[in-house]
Amino acid sequence: MNALGHHSLVDLHGCDEAALKDTAAIRLALLDAVRRAGGTIVTDTFHTFSPYGVSGVVVIAESHVTIHTWPEHGYAAVDVFSCGVTLDHRLIAAHVKTALAAASFSLQSHPRGALPPVAAARAS
Amino acid sequence: MNALGHHSLVDLHGCDEAALKDTAAIRLALLDAVRRAGGTIVTDTFHTFSPYGVSGVVVIAESHVTIHTWPEHGYAAVDVFSCGVTLDHRLIAAHVKTALAAASFSLQSHPRGALPPVAAARAS
Repeated sequence: MNALGHHSLVDLHGCDEAALKDTAAIRLALLDAVRRAGGTIVTDTFHTFSPYGVSGVVVIAESHVTIHTWPEHGYAAVDVFSCGVTLDHRLIAAHVKTALAAASFSLQSHPRGALPPVAAARAS
Repeated sequence: MNALGHHSLVDLHGCDEAALKDTAAIRLALLDAVRRAGGTIVTDTFHTFSPYGVSGVVVIAESHVTIHTWPEHGYAAVDVFSCGVTLDHRLIAAHVKTALAAASFSLQSHPRGALPPVAAARAS
């Protein structure tokens, strides 16, 4: 491991429009996903935007999970950022995919804070 | 424009260690950066981790800005995610770079929620 953080950019297309507008259900799904994936929840904040759309952030001891939804386009963007290797990013993506009845999702992984070899050895 | 959101992954290296531990100053710098960049702040939450390290999230009407710091490695990860094209991502990155006295920063841009041409025309 030569990076301090791991960041997954998850894009979900073809989601159920009503599910993308349901702030309370999205919050419960995301919190449940984080717990199942091994995350430690510090706090969360969710907002419903006018005329529609949800933004949510879960701050976790490992870093953060966020979601933004565009009901009119059947689209949701989820980010999972964690330090360490314990948090299961794919489990979170799969759980949210089910909750939003998404037709498809893509997950791009990005290492964050790559260390030079000596520092990486100290950090491991 | 054929994407619903724009996401910048900003990595700051060679930061001042004390600055990376100063939760209150980091919060003020991030809120100030968002306002200068044209963002509309909805809420924010910042946490200091033991033994050190700061996690902060600013929920904005345009989506979110987050920061995570690793003082022991002189590193901070900043994310700027916005819909629309008004928020100046580079201004936020530059402002945080100054606040943390970073030696260098990199910024990777990722479109989020790419639309097929017909939907893109409707969304524009």
